[in-house]
Amino acid sequence: MLGTVIHGPRDVRAQDLPEPSVLTPNDAVIRVVAACVCGSDLWPYRGTTPTRAPHGIGHELVGVVEELGGDVTSAKVGDFVIVPFSFGCGECQACLAGYPSACDRVTFYGGQDRDGLPVLGAQSARVRIPFAQSTLVPVPVPLDELEAKGLVPSLLTLSDVMSTGHHAAVSANVGPDTTVVVVGDGAVGLCGVIAAKRLGASRIVIMSRHEDRAALARELGATDVVAERGADGVAAVRELLGGLADCALECVGTDVSMEQALGVVRGGGSVGFVGVPNGGAELPIRQIFGRNLHVGGGMAPARAYIEELLADVLSGAIEPGRVFDLTLPLAEVAEAYAAMDERRATKVLLRP
Amino acid sequence: MLGTVIHGPRDVRAQDLPEPSVLTPNDAVIRVVAACVCGSDLWPYRGTTPTRAPHGIGHELVGVVEELGGDVTSAKVGDFVIVPFSFGCGECQACLAGYPSACDRVTFYGGQDRDGLPVLGAQSARVRIPFAQSTLVPVPVPLDELEAKGLVPSLLTLSDVMSTGHHAAVSANVGPDTTVVVVGDGAVGLCGVIAAKRLGASRIVIMSRHEDRAALARELGATDVVAERGADGVAAVRELLGGLADCALECVGTDVSMEQALGVVRGGGSVGFVGVPNGGAELPIRQIFGRNLHVGGGMAPARAYIEELLADVLSGAIEPGRVFDLTLPLAEVAEAYAAMDERRATKVLLRP
Repeated sequence: MLGTVIHGPRDVRAQDLPEPSVLTPNDAVIRVVAACVCGSDLWPYRGTTPTRAPHGIGHELVGVVEELGGDVTSAKVGDFVIVPFSFGCGECQACLAGYPSACDRVTFYGGQDRDGLPVLGAQSARVRIPFAQSTLVPVPVPLDELEAKGLVPSLLTLSDVMSTGHHAAVSANVGPDTTVVVVGDGAVGLCGVIAAKRLGASRIVIMSRHEDRAALARELGATDVVAERGADGVAAVRELLGGLADCALECVGTDVSMEQALGVVRGGGSVGFVGVPNGGAELPIRQIFGRNLHVGGGMAPARAYIEELLADVLSGAIEPGRVFDLTLPLAEVAEAYAAMDERRATKVLLRP
Repeated sequence: MLGTVIHGPRDVRAQDLPEPSVLTPNDAVIRVVAACVCGSDLWPYRGTTPTRAPHGIGHELVGVVEELGGDVTSAKVGDFVIVPFSFGCGECQACLAGYPSACDRVTFYGGQDRDGLPVLGAQSARVRIPFAQSTLVPVPVPLDELEAKGLVPSLLTLSDVMSTGHHAAVSANVGPDTTVVVVGDGAVGLCGVIAAKRLGASRIVIMSRHEDRAALARELGATDVVAERGADGVAAVRELLGGLADCALECVGTDVSMEQALGVVRGGGSVGFVGVPNGGAELPIRQIFGRNLHVGGGMAPARAYIEELLADVLSGAIEPGRVFDLTLPLAEVAEAYAAMDERRATKVLLRP
């Protein structure tokens, strides 16, 4: 079967791999219906994160349960399921508190699980999922109906990008009548816009220099677009809102984007950050203290959000699948990466 | 009249100063009934913060309104008032959002206001208070009755230390049935214990190595005491709570205390920090991201909390005045500093 392996910078291959199988009683094997490429997948692709040895890549999928270990009762063979991008044990304190992404035994795609057993990347035809009992989320609608309604892309976003945008908004204390600035116009930022609107924000400013992304952001709920950056960006936000924002969503992960997010919120405001930190700077404690800011975030506890967001996807209230602007067969995964790397696409959906 | 001036390391003097007077329509002159020494006053006292030129010191007082500018209607001459440690304009975005300590024109004791006019330290017989309209909080009980009931020390704590302990707890998302670790057993930490209990915490662990402070902390609401520090402290918390804490209150301001606070909370937990950062470290973004922590805090917006806490002081529900373990006349302010510096006292109340 086909599975995606990264071998080094700009060397991502859909190659023939052995079929996965259930290895523990808490496993599932999922036949992938749709997967996709994440902005964070571009870091090893670009060499920003070194690839020491070839490994499976991709961490977003929806699919059909083909095989289950004996302990798994949360889904049935044949169910169409959403699989969050990280796997939590479901039993530790962080999992029980609703933060499976901070699980004591948190496990990811593309390496080994906590028993040392292999886990493929999600950009594959089939994947073994560990901690399946606490991970799988069945969708209570038949797959053919979901496909007919075009809902599969939106459901796929719940595995990561929409849950991550939602986490940024929740971590930034977005609520009714708050003013929000979204830093980042990638797929996560666009989902942050959707989340902020869904949570009742009165003004949603997206910082974007790409006309197409800004236009999509407006369709998804952004009320304003700011193209300026740095101090000019802060001034533009201040002008638009008649002051600074209550909340900022940091959806990039660079030092500059965090500085921007901290700069656009008022004293006592909140920054939710979900961009995986890939700069060298720490969080400036004196600035945060002096301006009484709140900062929170991290890897989204997607599993904990999926049911809530799923209801809104199924009802059509939100359409996060619109962040995909290119669909390719899994066999063309190398082109998917290239298209995102070269900014020819915001986010690419893959069909095995 | 007597007022306290710091001249340099370990050189704090109660000296004769000119009487202050109303200089703008938004001023008040307060006759000080009680003031006190803050842990943060010890930094210039110890030379940790340099004193470039002599200036007034002290930022906590309660007193009687003696004179008012023409624009001040929030208090009357003769009122007994609580004065928060920072003065906010009451009009800017941060003030209106409930964060006067992050006011665009935030003004402090012991220097100059935004008009360049002098402000004495609070450890004085009388002080001119700028931004009086948005700063003064009258207490609706006659002073003689408050003195008879021994409530003046507790009311004095609302000017800073109790409001600050409350801010730590609020910033750490303390609520009903949360488990809390308080890092720091000084007056702020002890007030953090009171605040955590008041907000409904089910377990309150104070990290303390001082038997007397630990004993007082237990009387104020701490359920457990941990003497260990660092990894041993984390292990002790884990043992006591059967896991890590939901919330930590960082009430010291050193790199080590922040590291401790971040270490004792579970994945997805919250740290409220009110210790003025006086170490060299920034906040570790990767640790916060990886464990999905929330961090918030800063200088307490005391003005915004005082009414709420005042009701509980007047009812006797909380007794934050118990953090004072020494009372001296203002003339002996040098001894007050020495007693706190040498840890002979936790917090010293001064009577002009």
